[in-house]
Amino acid sequence: MTITPGGDTVTWGPDGLTVPTDASTLLPGALAGAPGGPEAVAALVTAAADVLSAARDERGGPLPARTPHEVAEAVRTALGPLPAAPEQDPASADPARRVLARLTHVLAANAADPSHPRCAAHLHCPPLAVAVAADAVASVLNQSMDSWDQAPAATAMETRVIGELAGLAGYDPDAAGGVVTSGGTESNLTALLLARDHALAGTGHDPVRHGVARAAAGARPRILCGAAAHFSVQRSAALLGLGEDAVVAVDVDSRHRMRPRALREALDRTRADGDVPVAVVATAGTTDLGGIDSLGAISHIAREYGVWLHVDAAYGGGLLFSRRLRGMLAGLGRAHSVGLDLHKLGWQPVAAGVLLTRERALFAPLSRSVDYLNPADDEEAGYPSLLGYSLRTTRRADVFKIAVTLRVLGTDGLGRLVDACRDLALRTAAAVTAHPRLQLAAAPSLTTVVFRYDAGADSDGVNARLRRRLMEEGRAVVGRTRLDGRVWLKLTLLNPDTTAEDTAALLAEVAAAGDAELSATKESR
Amino acid sequence: MTITPGGDTVTWGPDGLTVPTDASTLLPGALAGAPGGPEAVAALVTAAADVLSAARDERGGPLPARTPHEVAEAVRTALGPLPAAPEQDPASADPARRVLARLTHVLAANAADPSHPRCAAHLHCPPLAVAVAADAVASVLNQSMDSWDQAPAATAMETRVIGELAGLAGYDPDAAGGVVTSGGTESNLTALLLARDHALAGTGHDPVRHGVARAAAGARPRILCGAAAHFSVQRSAALLGLGEDAVVAVDVDSRHRMRPRALREALDRTRADGDVPVAVVATAGTTDLGGIDSLGAISHIAREYGVWLHVDAAYGGGLLFSRRLRGMLAGLGRAHSVGLDLHKLGWQPVAAGVLLTRERALFAPLSRSVDYLNPADDEEAGYPSLLGYSLRTTRRADVFKIAVTLRVLGTDGLGRLVDACRDLALRTAAAVTAHPRLQLAAAPSLTTVVFRYDAGADSDGVNARLRRRLMEEGRAVVGRTRLDGRVWLKLTLLNPDTTAEDTAALLAEVAAAGDAELSATKESR
Repeated sequence: MTITPGGDTVTWGPDGLTVPTDASTLLPGALAGAPGGPEAVAALVTAAADVLSAARDERGGPLPARTPHEVAEAVRTALGPLPAAPEQDPASADPARRVLARLTHVLAANAADPSHPRCAAHLHCPPLAVAVAADAVASVLNQSMDSWDQAPAATAMETRVIGELAGLAGYDPDAAGGVVTSGGTESNLTALLLARDHALAGTGHDPVRHGVARAAAGARPRILCGAAAHFSVQRSAALLGLGEDAVVAVDVDSRHRMRPRALREALDRTRADGDVPVAVVATAGTTDLGGIDSLGAISHIAREYGVWLHVDAAYGGGLLFSRRLRGMLAGLGRAHSVGLDLHKLGWQPVAAGVLLTRERALFAPLSRSVDYLNPADDEEAGYPSLLGYSLRTTRRADVFKIAVTLRVLGTDGLGRLVDACRDLALRTAAAVTAHPRLQLAAAPSLTTVVFRYDAGADSDGVNARLRRRLMEEGRAVVGRTRLDGRVWLKLTLLNPDTTAEDTAALLAEVAAAGDAELSATKESR
Repeated sequence: MTITPGGDTVTWGPDGLTVPTDASTLLPGALAGAPGGPEAVAALVTAAADVLSAARDERGGPLPARTPHEVAEAVRTALGPLPAAPEQDPASADPARRVLARLTHVLAANAADPSHPRCAAHLHCPPLAVAVAADAVASVLNQSMDSWDQAPAATAMETRVIGELAGLAGYDPDAAGGVVTSGGTESNLTALLLARDHALAGTGHDPVRHGVARAAAGARPRILCGAAAHFSVQRSAALLGLGEDAVVAVDVDSRHRMRPRALREALDRTRADGDVPVAVVATAGTTDLGGIDSLGAISHIAREYGVWLHVDAAYGGGLLFSRRLRGMLAGLGRAHSVGLDLHKLGWQPVAAGVLLTRERALFAPLSRSVDYLNPADDEEAGYPSLLGYSLRTTRRADVFKIAVTLRVLGTDGLGRLVDACRDLALRTAAAVTAHPRLQLAAAPSLTTVVFRYDAGADSDGVNARLRRRLMEEGRAVVGRTRLDGRVWLKLTLLNPDTTAEDTAALLAEVAAAGDAELSATKESR
């Protein structure tokens, strides 16, 4: 190995590489955190804000009046081919600003805008400006939560905010564990992993080391949840090696709430079959009807059978902020774990999921000591590590925007937004009921309104097509789903600025599109 | 059910709830995407930029000169108790700005700053200002990638950029599949899930439905990787229900590269034991030494044995941008799947992971049709869905910042930054070699320099303590790891603005801290 330190070049041994000296390639302000960087970010965001506003006006509605193919073409044109050389344009001194403007324009002009009152399909909220700004601060600092020395303050902040949210959920903040996740799907997966390893360890095996094949040894692991639970429960079961058919779908009532008696029967069957009940997953806010399982009754049953209770409150967890509505989650604090998504009824930009456990020690199956991240002597010396709480390694400080929002609005401020959305859902449901061509599926439990245009025997096709017609014409983004084998439409109301007049206008759009589709159907016969 | 639409209140049936009318609770500009919103975001980011710069100056170094306890206290004080009511301060007209400033200050003053030349512990890059600004645009629009009607343009953009990156990796862009992930850990997990289900389906079972217990039926699934592969391979094996001991650690050479002959022997043993080889995981850039497996030789072996080859190029994938260095990844395009992290050698804020597969169909085990997200007739009508590419459901448009950065810098521009960091590593290694008290572990393969302060028999303790001393005094963030049972220090050089003079100063800090620790050790005897 030949090494020549100093001088203009370094020749490094085995591969004989000569190192040039002109390595510096960045302009001042190019790095967000370096001197001049935050100001450069602010200038770029200010320029992008103009483009965002102009593109919103240009779009003029909740989504572009374009087909998917047309949108893809617009994106392709704006992107152009992947360049090798940096973009050079003699007319512009600042390629960063120019490229950002061009791509911001195409993204915004062809966006589905959750802040538009006629965009109401999904659990896809319009984020608060202050949360978005806080998110930008998190990006500038780029802390990573997998070790203290990549996130000193952010580590402390996550620990504190997790405690606060645990307190809201009815846990002891000093005993509870938790972590910020990418959303309900990751929260469910993580909770089911912990529950799986907890349950299988109880059979005398070590599933972390040996896997579920040996640990299960004849007994089939089972996860029990309401039949209207989120599909990520099945998906998690597949991921965890248990298989989708490990999930036992427990009967639900007409508002999609798990029937406690049916849960008890399912647990009895599981026992009788010699299977291992890994977890009961209760849902606080099903995706379609917003159904909230009876957490009090279910938590008693889970305790009686000695089974881990996880509550998927990705949607309904926002009720914790509302003085008027938080009683709907009574019993939550008795669960082993709960997932909340503050990018739903919390008005955060994605991602702001949270998984909480009643006790920190429940995270044990995830704990790892990694030489380069959290060596034991560092932990003994007082350097905390959050590595053992997350499925991820590198992890963004999403907690920062949550912390800022909780301070700006307070829990009551967020609660008022929750109340507003629920009130809007009740009013909108009333308007559906009063409408001669629309049918309501069920009374709203949370902030969704499931309904359809009544086209008799043609209803399924007409509703599917009228929804696509509204999208193609750029008029509305309405959800759809399937209940009892039929196609229904859905409004998911997460915009606290939307009024009953707005949703009445939206229902009028749906009815008009339904009339048009019905005529087209009849003409084509 | 009693419904009284219109009027001042709505009384809704079973629970007799009366809905008040004064639901509007938001000020203009409160929602980031609504009229006035982007301007409000820009104003908040501009105000935060001043705080970020002031806090950086106040910190004065790569991290705060504070103990973890002191940092936690500062955070606790800045947060204050969780308020119920919104913050009210008669002296301030704008609580959002005030709270954001206060919490930005504590986060930044107590951050580990990857743009500081003496912050060089981890694969934790200083992000580009333009990428951070693009990330803020993504937050304003808050598109979610799980359905087209939450992300029309973003869906098209991810599809296009994935194709571009696939082309760089040596895949056919029109045939390849892929998805933006939260990082290498999620990329490895997803790839191993696909590989697991691919391999087990080959045994005549359906692991997605039935799990790995039944599918495995005696034969043990095995994952083979180099002994220096990332710990997320073990973690993924546990998560996937295979158990950590399903992972076969293949012997590596002194630069942590898997020995192809040892891989062949391990595959022969797997076959002889009647086990199922699920995947070979090659690493392009190990975390400590930056070792790059011989992808050409390994891909031939994997093909010969009919085993899925996944390449964890979370770190080394950035070499694809460098004309000078991309040859180090020759053979990459023969892998079934590859993970790249553009939040490492790509200068993106977290998260910007990418998983690519040679063929789109390899994602089949993840494909799902969900009534409320991607009904079959919508897909037939031309509405594309990316749901089947990701473990997540709600998913932020992280692709936007990647698309913008690729246009602003071009692949060559990014490549120059990669070259600069590698050159710096070679120069820094030379400086270590020239230093009387420092020892180099191995020649740098990528951009890490693993070394230690030579304190003879006391080296382990002295190096561990000198690193904590540098942190407590706010002087440097240096990594550490363990090689052959001994404690080593590590510089991970990802800042293209850092010079050889900067790293020489950093090495001087390390040597001085080592001298101090060595004296303290001797005195205490």
